[in-house]
Order: sequence, then structure tokens, then C-alpha cells
Amino acid sequence: MTGWNFCSDNAAGASPEILEALTRAGGGSVMPYGADPLTAKVEQRLRDVFETDLTAYLVATGTAANSLALSSMCPPYGAVYCHPESHINLDECGAPEFYTGGAKLVTLDGADGKLQLAALEQALAAGWAGVEHHSQPAAVSLTQASEAGTVYQPGDIAAISEICRAHGLGLHVDGARFANALVTLGCTPAAASWRAGVDALSFGATKNGALAVEAVIFFRPGLTDGFRFRRKRAGHLFSKMRFLSAQLDAYLEGDLWLNNARHSNAMATRLADGLSQIDGVSFLHKVEANELFVNLPAAVREGLEADGYKFYAWAVGGPDCVRLVTAFDTDAEAINGFIDSARRHAAAA
Amino acid sequence: MTGWNFCSDNAAGASPEILEALTRAGGGSVMPYGADPLTAKVEQRLRDVFETDLTAYLVATGTAANSLALSSMCPPYGAVYCHPESHINLDECGAPEFYTGGAKLVTLDGADGKLQLAALEQALAAGWAGVEHHSQPAAVSLTQASEAGTVYQPGDIAAISEICRAHGLGLHVDGARFANALVTLGCTPAAASWRAGVDALSFGATKNGALAVEAVIFFRPGLTDGFRFRRKRAGHLFSKMRFLSAQLDAYLEGDLWLNNARHSNAMATRLADGLSQIDGVSFLHKVEANELFVNLPAAVREGLEADGYKFYAWAVGGPDCVRLVTAFDTDAEAINGFIDSARRHAAAA
Amino acid sequence: MTGWNFCSDNAAGASPEILEALTRAGGGSVMPYGADPLTAKVEQRLRDVFETDLTAYLVATGTAANSLALSSMCPPYGAVYCHPESHINLDECGAPEFYTGGAKLVTLDGADGKLQLAALEQALAAGWAGVEHHSQPAAVSLTQASEAGTVYQPGDIAAISEICRAHGLGLHVDGARFANALVTLGCTPAAASWRAGVDALSFGATKNGALAVEAVIFFRPGLTDGFRFRRKRAGHLFSKMRFLSAQLDAYLEGDLWLNNARHSNAMATRLADGLSQIDGVSFLHKVEANELFVNLPAAVREGLEADGYKFYAWAVGGPDCVRLVTAFDTDAEAINGFIDSARRHAAAA
Amino acid sequence: MTGWNFCSDNAAGASPEILEALTRAGGGSVMPYGADPLTAKVEQRLRDVFETDLTAYLVATGTAANSLALSSMCPPYGAVYCHPESHINLDECGAPEFYTGGAKLVTLDGADGKLQLAALEQALAAGWAGVEHHSQPAAVSLTQASEAGTVYQPGDIAAISEICRAHGLGLHVDGARFANALVTLGCTPAAASWRAGVDALSFGATKNGALAVEAVIFFRPGLTDGFRFRRKRAGHLFSKMRFLSAQLDAYLEGDLWLNNARHSNAMATRLADGLSQIDGVSFLHKVEANELFVNLPAAVREGLEADGYKFYAWAVGGPDCVRLVTAFDTDAEAINGFIDSARRHAAAA
Repeated sequence: MTGWNFCSDNAAGASPEILEALTRAGGGSVMPYGADPLTAKVEQRLRDVFETDLTAYLVATGTAANSLALSSMCPPYGAVYCHPESHINLDECGAPEFYTGGAKLVTLDGADGKLQLAALEQALAAGWAGVEHHSQPAAVSLTQASEAGTVYQPGDIAAISEICRAHGLGLHVDGARFANALVTLGCTPAAASWRAGVDALSFGATKNGALAVEAVIFFRPGLTDGFRFRRKRAGHLFSKMRFLSAQLDAYLEGDLWLNNARHSNAMATRLADGLSQIDGVSFLHKVEANELFVNLPAAVREGLEADGYKFYAWAVGGPDCVRLVTAFDTDAEAINGFIDSARRHAAAA
Repeated sequence: MTGWNFCSDNAAGASPEILEALTRAGGGSVMPYGADPLTAKVEQRLRDVFETDLTAYLVATGTAANSLALSSMCPPYGAVYCHPESHINLDECGAPEFYTGGAKLVTLDGADGKLQLAALEQALAAGWAGVEHHSQPAAVSLTQASEAGTVYQPGDIAAISEICRAHGLGLHVDGARFANALVTLGCTPAAASWRAGVDALSFGATKNGALAVEAVIFFRPGLTDGFRFRRKRAGHLFSKMRFLSAQLDAYLEGDLWLNNARHSNAMATRLADGLSQIDGVSFLHKVEANELFVNLPAAVREGLEADGYKFYAWAVGGPDCVRLVTAFDTDAEAINGFIDSARRHAAAA
Repeated sequence: MTGWNFCSDNAAGASPEILEALTRAGGGSVMPYGADPLTAKVEQRLRDVFETDLTAYLVATGTAANSLALSSMCPPYGAVYCHPESHINLDECGAPEFYTGGAKLVTLDGADGKLQLAALEQALAAGWAGVEHHSQPAAVSLTQASEAGTVYQPGDIAAISEICRAHGLGLHVDGARFANALVTLGCTPAAASWRAGVDALSFGATKNGALAVEAVIFFRPGLTDGFRFRRKRAGHLFSKMRFLSAQLDAYLEGDLWLNNARHSNAMATRLADGLSQIDGVSFLHKVEANELFVNLPAAVREGLEADGYKFYAWAVGGPDCVRLVTAFDTDAEAINGFIDSARRHAAAA
Repeated sequence: MTGWNFCSDNAAGASPEILEALTRAGGGSVMPYGADPLTAKVEQRLRDVFETDLTAYLVATGTAANSLALSSMCPPYGAVYCHPESHINLDECGAPEFYTGGAKLVTLDGADGKLQLAALEQALAAGWAGVEHHSQPAAVSLTQASEAGTVYQPGDIAAISEICRAHGLGLHVDGARFANALVTLGCTPAAASWRAGVDALSFGATKNGALAVEAVIFFRPGLTDGFRFRRKRAGHLFSKMRFLSAQLDAYLEGDLWLNNARHSNAMATRLADGLSQIDGVSFLHKVEANELFVNLPAAVREGLEADGYKFYAWAVGGPDCVRLVTAFDTDAEAINGFIDSARRHAAAA
């Protein structure tokens, strides 16, 4: 195996099961815009998976899912608390601000990509709710698994949720890698979401084997009032909705989603184990899902690239830092090859 | 053949060629967000098809295509002139207003779903450009084929374009059914677009055999400056872009798009021919693409529904009016069946 | 008296009583942003004047008043029904769209600048509430006195309000010339507003003798939730609020507002009476407040201008139409002079 | 003298000269919306004061001035760099986000309320310009005098401007207290603005003796294209513009603005001198304009309040911190009284 693309889990293609589902869904007429049997089936599947009477809306990108969810939880004059490295803050070109009509993302720092309870408490202690000069506290958004490849424990989330409820804030989780977090936690989807006080979840599938589908799941009823209109006016209501539903149906069928994430995480762990035994290699964060943030000597980085491996330099982590992401289809041989290459170049340095 | 769904061309599924292309595109790693070979190939294909050095951006829905195109042509304080029945005005829940940051759609009436040159001239004669009290004239948007199933001649478009240029307005075409119009016109894509003075085209594929893909095509360079940022912050930049590109690649391959539209239009014509020979049936507009707006006696409507045919009542056209839409996969037997059923129920009435 | 400016009531200056009130309010320290005694006093005055427990917020322009009121009544995906000639539709450069985050103004025609009940009923009969493809019916906005210088009877408003309530719409009145309408109606402020079912009123003072102040008055409690935040983030919360309050305080003191409007209307009536006796002069609308829309022969128009009279040509009314507006300070001699001048030039023609 | 309000300079009233100017401006008809002689005169005055061919637009509040200026410099997908404590970030309820259509304020820390050059350089070194995932660097906004009562030297501003130009960013200055900074700097208005590379200045008058007027001044021509439309659709175009112009005319006449600021600063210095000699009193920042941030023991704070002095606790500065603001009308006796009271309560503690 020479070379592999570790740039992102969205460099991967799609699970064969999902592609087959698309093909099966492709023939014949059904009513458009979600009034088809497959969409109804998927909604029921999600209720079964999460063991509760949720409301779910399908969209095609994570940015759309996050922004639509937040715009349902935050008025134009509101504030959303999030980690500085969160996708909504750094990597969506201001999408939450666009969708909310100009709300403010207020960043609260925390180690390992995770928003700290204490920082949230301190921010809310300013007492700005009701004071017209300030953006009004409206929601908290967590990323699970985080952008640092770490995972919140359900207890962490529950503690944050408790503060949210005390202050009337909604709690949103960006779950672009929710499956990866879940297999690490080993708990039920319910335990990692609504039982921990999550109000809205961007339930990602795209990074974990789908082509392009995410579900915005609301566990709290009041939030859904305007969602359908917001989705439509953003151009995220798909006329041939069956093709989003078919993806998610196959994704949930036979635990494909969990199996995909399990494989992805296992490859990340194997890669971390191998790299950690090489001199001069260090990790920024504990590897808890499918992302590694690793300091690699320049010679090793250059050698790996020469051997055909692709990955992103990660400036946030410092000049030596790279990000390595595994996916549902990462080849075990590619992991071995990467470790061998790194070891060889480290030894030669 | 008992029954058929004539509600909309988006009730149809996807062309097998396009589904196969998706499956082919599904394996292996490529760079995300459009930095993949298939996306580059599609952009080149569009340049070949339109015989010019255009810029194209792929999105997944027609609403997104229209709104993003218009937001590139119209400031927040601008006005877009369009037909009252246009999709952007009636059927997108205010998407253009959202994307432009609050611009105004100013409707200009015209027979057969087509914006009239004279109405545009009159609106611009008010002399509001530069006067700060009024929304500033910024763009015109036409629908081709129109929402009434009619088709603008290139000369019609060129005349409107001339006015647009004289007043510094951009000219956008909502081409959700551009292929259907083109096969009716029998001219080249270039003749029906930039050679007639079109600045930006929403080039639809979804309604004509794709799952979900449209290209926003800019023929005028200056309009594209902010597009990539606007697309991203709207959540319409797909990480696994290859799956949009694969659809459009197959759509353009071997004239699939024109063949699909030709079939669809032929079915509409056949349906119109058959229905026009039935007593008590009349048409609102000449059938020039793949949509029919037909007055059917109540007994005929009810009989057709009882026989399993689906279609929408079309209140805009009056109490007896229904809309019938054919698609790339409409079965000729279904057309025959529909005509037979209508004739039978008309005779019985 | 040679010449007078009839262009608009905002070409007039300010009532001496209001200027004196400003000077009185100018000294000493008070708490900013409305936490001053004068602001509290004005709110109570408004409650007394309208004989109900309203909520009022002061802003400095009519456009701000209208837009902030509508943004409290209409979601970003909503529709506001209004007359095509209404100020919010024609003369605010898209302010309601900006403030609502992109809602749509849907125009409903009607004679004499007044929205017709039947047109509203027909629009709502389309049944688009709850259907995600369409902007959601949210509010109706009337202009009292209308942009055609006519006046809605309380019964007209009550009938429209009834439809609004049946469909869950809010009813807003743009009362930039509310005082002028009120003295024509001869009823109480309550009868012309909340007793007729008005939910929110832009209560104008600027055009009627103030420098720059309007009150947004909510008669329905639920609408006010976000208002303070919306006003602040629009830059319409004045730090030295006392200077808005002082104007409104003097405006309401001793019925100055009604006296000003009574004078203004009387001057309009006198002007109309005089002009109506001149050959070749005709009126577009009955003169019911302080605006006249008059067809004047070209020779008369030119002669008046040569004699130093200022007024706007009114293209909406046709090539011969001009608008004449009287104000609180319009000189009776100026009226006489205008009529004499018009008669003289008409005779010479 | 018992007691005084040190809460803010906007707790002060208005300069008598400005009130008199309003009264003078109040009579007679002039054309509305700025087409009056007084507005033209003020624009020329500003050109004279700043010794350059600037463009100026009057509005009534600082929030409007800042937000409109920034919306002319920053696309909806842009980022504005500012200090975390800046008024635009903390105290305007998200107004810049609203006016820009959802741009992002990116905060860059710095001592004494001043944005640090190094922090800006580091932020721009991320290289996000042109990368569609990130909000696009568009502008820098400084506050002069800062929210910490400190003053940027022209050289500081010039250094920041140099970076801005190298990266294509606009440079905005929130000059709500520009006059206070200027008298401290002792340089010309030109030296403190466009000669130091400032592109747009919110030139404040309200806090320094006016009732409600600010000028948005553009020194760089290209920025003004849409301003008039943005101002109108925000409801900040005043129909009776003469009343804004009259204020600014009087403000600039005979150096009233500089004299007012000189007095205000002198009172702040006197207050700082007196307090600094009291045991247990310490300052957060050097006093360079008209604001003091002082740590006062609890007994002193309570004693002062009991003696009738008003001021705000300043939580950002810690539990003992209060803010004291002087104004154009602060009485020297009130300063003496405050110091005496503080000394007395400190001694008693």
C-alpha cells in the first residue's frame, strides 16, 4: 500500500450499502419534498434509535444542519456560546450568523477542544440577560466528537445542560462525528443526547459513509415551529427527498453507522499506537475518536508526503502539528504503511 | 398501465446513467470541497456545452441556485424584477430575500408566465436608480421554460437584456427546466443564454433526471467575486462534491440531458394532443415544454383520480384547472391511459 | 406672500412649543437610555391619550418605527400585506425587509390608497399558511391617513382586523399622519386604534410639528418581547432619550398635536376648495387629510413654479399630477396666494 | 454641591449653544432629507476641520454610525477585527452583525483597551483570505478614545493602517469620544485620522454636548457607494435633517467641540489626581481622556452613593472597580465634593 489520504473523513467516498440504497430508490414516482414512504420510514428509525418521540429534518450538509438548528434556538439579537475551535465558529464562513440573521457567536475556551463548564458559568454571571445593550444569551453549542478529536462524557453534557436550563438557553450538539463519539462512549444514543439534556442534535452521516445527508433532530418540541420554513427558504428542502432518506435509511440499517465509526476509530487508535512509539512524535490531545493531532518532525512530514501520504498541516497546533483523520474505509494496510514510513523517516533524521 | 404521477417532474426518480455514475464515483479518496478531478471535468464540460469561458458552481437545489445567483447580482437594498408567478417569487418561501439580505422582488405581469418587455421598461422609467428612498433596480430574473410551461425566444431575452444593460441591471435565468426549453427552441445552449445576453443561469438537472444537482453558471466575470463565500456560508458547499459532479457529468454525457428533455416534452405534446380532442377540455397556455395547464370538468378530474392518476389542482388557473407535468421517465402508455380515462369520463359526464 | 413649499409636511420646521421643551430638557444630568423621568411621563401620557395600558417605544424616524413594529410581528419567512403605494413598500428602500430579516411585502391593490378587504380575503384564501413553499402570512399594514391623503373609517379597520385575527395575522398601522386622520374622523384615539383591532401603531409626530420623534405603540402585549433588543441593535435606542421624550411630551401637551393637525387639514381643505373652482383642475382622490393629488395643466404648473411655489410632480398619478402637502405651519396667505396664482395662470392659458 | 452623576457622558444634557442652534433652525420651510443649506454647510465645515475632501453622512446615534460605517467596509461573509471590550462588540446588541448581514466580529486582545498590532498580525498570518471556509478579513475597528479611557497615538494607528492596507482591510475608528482623544493628543484632526491611515470615522458629538448627532466620515472614496441606501433602509435618514445639521454646525462653531472635550478631560484629570492621593484607591488604566476606572474600597463606594454620587460598578475590572465619566458640563465643585467624600469615607474605614 503506497500512500493514503488522511486529510479528512470527507475525502472518503460512500459505503457500498448506501450507494446501493440510492440505486434502489431511483426508480418510479413518489411524492416530492419528503411526502414519500422512505422519509417517513427514516423518521421512525430515528425515533427507534434514540428511543424517544423526536422530530427530525433531513438536510445535505453539516453546515446547513448546524445553522438551521441554531437559527431555531437563537433570535437575531442572541448569543451562542461555543468553543473557539468549533466548526460553527471557524469553518463555516459565518453560516450561523447568516442563518440566525446576525446573532453573535461568543467563544469560551477550554482544553482539548471542549467547552468548559466554568467558562460558561462565568460568562452567564455577567448578568446580561434582559439588558438591551448586549447580545442575549440564547444557546450553547458543543461539538461531539470535538474538533480536537476528544469526546464529552454524558455527565459533562448533563452539567452544561443544567446551566443552560437554569438560564433558559438551548443546548445544541454538532454531531458531525456523533457516531465516532458514541462508539467510544459505549452508551446508547439516548444517553449521549436527550437523556443528557441535549435539545437539538446535528446527526451527521456524511463524514461516516454517506454521500451527503445529515439529520437535524429536535428533542424539545417548541424549537421546531419555524424549521420547515427556514429550511425551505435556505434552499435545503430537497424536492427528491427520497435520495436523502435512502442514504440515512441504509446508514441506520443493521448498525452500518456504528460499524463504520467503529472501524474508523479503530484505525485511529492503531495509528496513534504506532506513532506514539516513534521518537520525536507527540500528541496534542488524547485520541478518542477518529482524529489525531500529532507533532511530527519536519523530516518525517516531508518523508511521508514523498511516500504519497496526504494530510493537513494544522497551524493551530503549532508549526510541527499535522492532523490525521481516519474514515470508514481506511485500509489497515495504509495505517501500517504510514507508521512504517514515519518510523523510517524518523530513524533517518 | 393504471395510474401515473403527473404532479411534478420532481416526483420522478433518477436516470439510471446518473445512478451508475454515482456508484462509480463512490470509491476511493479524493480531495473534498470540489478539489477533485470530476469537478474539474464537469466545469470543462459546461464550457464545451456553452462554447464559452464561463464560471460554474454546483449546488443541490434550484432554490439555492437561484438565490445564490441573485445574491451575487443584487445588493441588500436592491430590487429584482420578475414575473408574479415565478418560482423565486411564489415558491421559495422568501429565499431570494434571505440570500440577498433583504432585497425586494418587484413583480411585473405578463401573459403566459412571461415577463413583458414593456412592463420592464415602464418600471425602469420611474427613474428610481440613485434615489435613496427606493429599492435600487439591480436585476431581472426570467424563468425558462416559464412556470406556465411556455418558452422565451432568444430574441425576447435579447430585448430584455438590452434594457438591462442600458440600466446596469444583471439578467438571471432560472433554468430549472432549461433543457426542456432548449429542445423546444432547437438552438444551441449558447444561443439561448449568453449570446442572448444572459449574465447568470441556474442550469437545472434535478427535474430532468438527476437526484439533486444544479449548476450556477456565470457568463459575466464580475459577478463571481463573493460566490464561493456565499455558497459556503449558506451550507451549500458539499464536502463530497464529487457526488454532485458525478451527476452532472453523466447528465451531460452523450446528450442525456437533451434526450431526457426531448422525451419529456414529447410526452407533454402527446398528452396535450390527446386531451385537446376531448369535449370540455381547454388549455390555459400553449404547451411548449413539459407542463400542461388544463381545464378539466370536475367529473373528469374525479374520474382520473379514481383511476389512479395523480396531479395538482392549480388554483391560480381557476377552479377547474389542473397542472400536468411529464418527466424524463414518463411512460407513453401512461399518456395513452390518461387520455383514455379522460375521454371515458368526459363521455360519461 | 410670494411662494411656499408644498413638497411635504417634513419640509416644515418644528412647533415653538416643542423647541422650547427641548431647551428646557437640555440641562442637568439624568439617567440615559430612557431611564429618565420625562420618558416615564410620556409613556403615561400615551396611556392616557389612548385610554389603555399600552407599551410605547420612542424612535426618531417613521421608517424605524414601521420597520421595528413589523419585525416584531413577522418572522423572516413571513409576508406582510400592504397597499402598493404604501410608504413601507415604495419609500423606505426596503427597510421592512431589512428589519424582518428578509420577509416579503405582498401588495394588495385598492382604490384611493386604501387596502381592500376583499383583496385581503382573496389573498388569504390561497391557503398558504403552513405550506413551507410560501412566505407565511404574518401581518397587515395600513397607512392612516393613507398615502393618497384619504382616511380609513374605524369600521374599515375593524373589518380588516377581524380577518387578521381569524388568520392569526397582526395588524399594524403606519400612522405617520395619524393626527391628521384623527381630526378628520373626529373620534377618540382609542376608537381609531385598538378598539378597531389595531395591534401596533407607528404614532407619528415628526411630520406634524416635532423635529424627529415617533412612538411605536403596541396594544397587544405578546408583540413586545424582543422590541428593546431590536431597537438597540438597529441603533435606534437614543442615549439622551430625554430629547425624544421632551418632543413628544410637548406634542401631547394641551392637544398641540391635534391643533397642529387641525390647522394642517384646514389648510388642505381651503386649498382644495379654491383649486376645485378652477377650470382644468381635477383631483385624483377626495382630500381627507393634509395631502392633495391634483391634475394641473402644464401652464399652471409652470406658472406656479415661476411664482415661487414648490411641490413634487407625482408620476404615479399621471403626467399632469402634482402632490401638495400642507403642514402645521402652513400660512393661510400662502394658500390664498397659491390659488390666485393657479387661477391667473389657468386663465392665461 | 451634593452629589453628581458620573455614570456616563450621555447622562449630561446639551450645550446651550447647540440648543440655541436648534431653535434658530426650527422655523420656515427647507427641502427635507439633507437637501437643505445647513447640511451643505456642515459638510463643508467638516472638510475644513479635517483639511481634506471627505464625504460625511449624519446620523443620530453612535451605534448607527459604527454599524453603517462597518457595513460599507465588510461583506456579509467578512470579519471585523476589534478589541473584546469595544463598544461594537460588547454594547451594541449585535448591531454590526445586523447591519453587515451577519459578518463576524473577531476579537483581538490588548492591554488598556487597545488593539495590539502584534495580535492583528498574528490573526492575519493564518492566511484565511480567499479560503471559503472562513469569514473573510475585511476591516479593523479601533475605538478612540478607547473604552478604557486611553488614547491611541497617531503612530499606533498608522502602524495598524499599514497592515490593513497590506491585507486589503478597511480601517474604521469609533470616535464616540474622538474630541476627548484629540485634545489629549494635541494634534490636528487630520493627523489623528486620515493622515494616520483611517478610512472611516464615526465622529461623535452626542457624548460631548450634542443632543443626538454623529457624522460618519469617509476619507476613502470607494466606501461610500451604497451608504445612502443603507442609511435610508435602516431608518437613519432624517426627514428634517436640518435638526441634525444644526447641532453639528454649532458643535464645530468656535471650537465648541474642543472646548467641551477640554473641560471634560480636565475634570477627569482633576478627579484622578485627587483620588490617587487616597489610600486604598488604585487605577486600572492611565487616565487619558474623560473616563476613570478606579478600584474603590467597598466602604468608600457605599459612602459616595450615600452622599448622592452616581456611578456604575464595572464588573469587567473586578469587584471593587467603578467607572467614573466626566462630561462637558461636569462641575468643578462636584469633582471637589467627590474627592472629599471619598477621602472622608476612606479615612473612616
